[in-house]
Amino acid sequence: MNYEPLPQRVLMGPGPSNVNARVLQAMALPTIGHLDPAFTVLMDETMELLRGVFGTRNMLTFPVSGTGSAGMEACFVNVLQPGDRVLVGVNGVFGERMCDVARRCGALVTRIEAPWGSALDPEAVRRAAKEVRPRVMAFVHAETSTGVLQPVEGIAAAAREVGALLMMDCVTSLGGGAAVQVDEWGVDLAYSGTQKCLSCPPGLAPVTFGERALAALDARTTPVQSWYLDLSMIRRYWTGERFYHHTAPVNMLYGLRECLRLIVEEGLERRVERHRRHAEALWAGLEAMGMRLFVPREVRLPSLTTVWIPEGAEDVAVRQALLQEANLEIGGGLGVVKGKIWRIGLMGETSTPANVLNLLSWLERLFRRSGVKTGSGLEAAQRVLGTE
Amino acid sequence: MNYEPLPQRVLMGPGPSNVNARVLQAMALPTIGHLDPAFTVLMDETMELLRGVFGTRNMLTFPVSGTGSAGMEACFVNVLQPGDRVLVGVNGVFGERMCDVARRCGALVTRIEAPWGSALDPEAVRRAAKEVRPRVMAFVHAETSTGVLQPVEGIAAAAREVGALLMMDCVTSLGGGAAVQVDEWGVDLAYSGTQKCLSCPPGLAPVTFGERALAALDARTTPVQSWYLDLSMIRRYWTGERFYHHTAPVNMLYGLRECLRLIVEEGLERRVERHRRHAEALWAGLEAMGMRLFVPREVRLPSLTTVWIPEGAEDVAVRQALLQEANLEIGGGLGVVKGKIWRIGLMGETSTPANVLNLLSWLERLFRRSGVKTGSGLEAAQRVLGTE
Repeated sequence: MNYEPLPQRVLMGPGPSNVNARVLQAMALPTIGHLDPAFTVLMDETMELLRGVFGTRNMLTFPVSGTGSAGMEACFVNVLQPGDRVLVGVNGVFGERMCDVARRCGALVTRIEAPWGSALDPEAVRRAAKEVRPRVMAFVHAETSTGVLQPVEGIAAAAREVGALLMMDCVTSLGGGAAVQVDEWGVDLAYSGTQKCLSCPPGLAPVTFGERALAALDARTTPVQSWYLDLSMIRRYWTGERFYHHTAPVNMLYGLRECLRLIVEEGLERRVERHRRHAEALWAGLEAMGMRLFVPREVRLPSLTTVWIPEGAEDVAVRQALLQEANLEIGGGLGVVKGKIWRIGLMGETSTPANVLNLLSWLERLFRRSGVKTGSGLEAAQRVLGTE
Repeated sequence: MNYEPLPQRVLMGPGPSNVNARVLQAMALPTIGHLDPAFTVLMDETMELLRGVFGTRNMLTFPVSGTGSAGMEACFVNVLQPGDRVLVGVNGVFGERMCDVARRCGALVTRIEAPWGSALDPEAVRRAAKEVRPRVMAFVHAETSTGVLQPVEGIAAAAREVGALLMMDCVTSLGGGAAVQVDEWGVDLAYSGTQKCLSCPPGLAPVTFGERALAALDARTTPVQSWYLDLSMIRRYWTGERFYHHTAPVNMLYGLRECLRLIVEEGLERRVERHRRHAEALWAGLEAMGMRLFVPREVRLPSLTTVWIPEGAEDVAVRQALLQEANLEIGGGLGVVKGKIWRIGLMGETSTPANVLNLLSWLERLFRRSGVKTGSGLEAAQRVLGTE
């Protein structure tokens, strides 16, 4: 048995992000029952706080008892029936995953693609929607595999035009990574995870279901294929009668409530600005070092920066050195960009000036040590950070 | 917003049980990445510790990222394909739930029933197995809705006789509630939850898959209908290559490892004896008070005692008084015994002499206050506890 203490890391990968001590301490509060009156008060408060970050008045806004991918699956299994047509935007790993999940529901999936590192073209989406006439249109707001922030307006308009339900993955944007406005945008259902910009440990998947999504659930003629994720039962526990379905992950919910309270204290808009400002500093620093960013500025995601690995630098060796020498985690590429890009997260608690400067400094040091050509990024980053 | 502090409860319901402070503190350790080398060490240690409590050498023994019901679903969706025949033992809520989950997989479900409060008759199971020739036979080892401990030998022999995969729900027995011996009994796959006798907060579902269960997974001709629970992918993360599937619930795993370490320190056999001894004391006390236990002694589950609500006592009023005046939670009945029985858990950390005596004392006080006929249970309980 290994009883070595756990390390403390600066989590600048694609998630999890660092967690505020108040959230960790909340998770260590004594467990109470999932039907305890004090717990149902906590459930209600959590739902109201989640409505705030989603930008919605949807009653059924709550955390699914699983990680972000369980949230994705909860969205698909509840509104899809076998034979339904689905249009999925694919420009990275998580769009691919959506196709996989939808197919497992027996849906007929049409893909509308864009190159990795680019956003979906709204005009192409509109043409495809008119051709396919899908029951559901799904897209990724913030692609964690590429660092692209998808503009929503054109896609939402296309969905309205053809009467499709609009589903959004906001795993890496919710909670400050980028503005999320479910109601204003006309999104019918959306899911996220706790371990990104909310800065809670992984384990819960906040979801929100609007009236049209619930109507689709109510109109089903076949049972939801997942018992665990069947919202027709789960909503009786989360709203109203508190009917037992499964035992809620009580202590995870302590943590989620606390991180949502922290967001209210900071202010969501200020938090979005903070993510943006520190990302700008990182971008300026990386470019000043001579590195090339993977995503064009106009669709670049503040919470996750992707950058080409410079010539001469070894992907795994650099990431290992950062972890071992600096206790600093960044992410490698997935799929077609594996070994070609790094993914640098500045999410939630992790989005600080100190973390930006520290990473730039370490990259520069490691590059110089192994003879990789590099400039200095600190001054450029400092200029963006200003007097903060 | 409600900022009232959370109450501290003695959790003597059907789960969650009370959690050791060491487990809570472990959950509050700083989050690290799900692919961090320090985390994979923790994963390996957790798997080895879980093998110990399951009584198995099965390589694929790990916690599913969801609560116990997700574990149930993970077992069914991975080994069943549409049209497969399944024989399910039903003598309570969780046998019913198994039927529901199996049907959602497109399986042809045959039920073999016993009255609530009784165990399944192994001879009847054997006859049904020979008639149905099921691909999977599933049963509940410890029925949390009734407090019945199912003898396994006869069912296991029947499964071997017809060549069926044997699936076991050990949610309320694993970790000391009653002996669990997956390998010795010939169980092919089993699932549990963390919030019962393991005394970890809810949120993870330990499962174990033997060679025959994995062969069934490998031989599938259709995809597993749940992406989130697809073990053909998840096992690549938990064993060997650490291939990313979904982000593991890192801090929950800190807690699970710590509660498993506590079990090793106590010794699993001693822990089983402790559960048994304190349950005996509770039973003696309740009977001395004049109450009737719901389950015959020979199949009575130590970790969860069910007792008829005595004449004149009001179900909800008594449970509310216990919660409000004593901070003590017990469970009500589910389904056909709702309002008729109480469910009293003595699981993991909650199984102590003090909790037994405290509950008996409070029940007696509340009964006397509302004119319900009662004797005294303390002496009878104390005699069983002896000099402990």
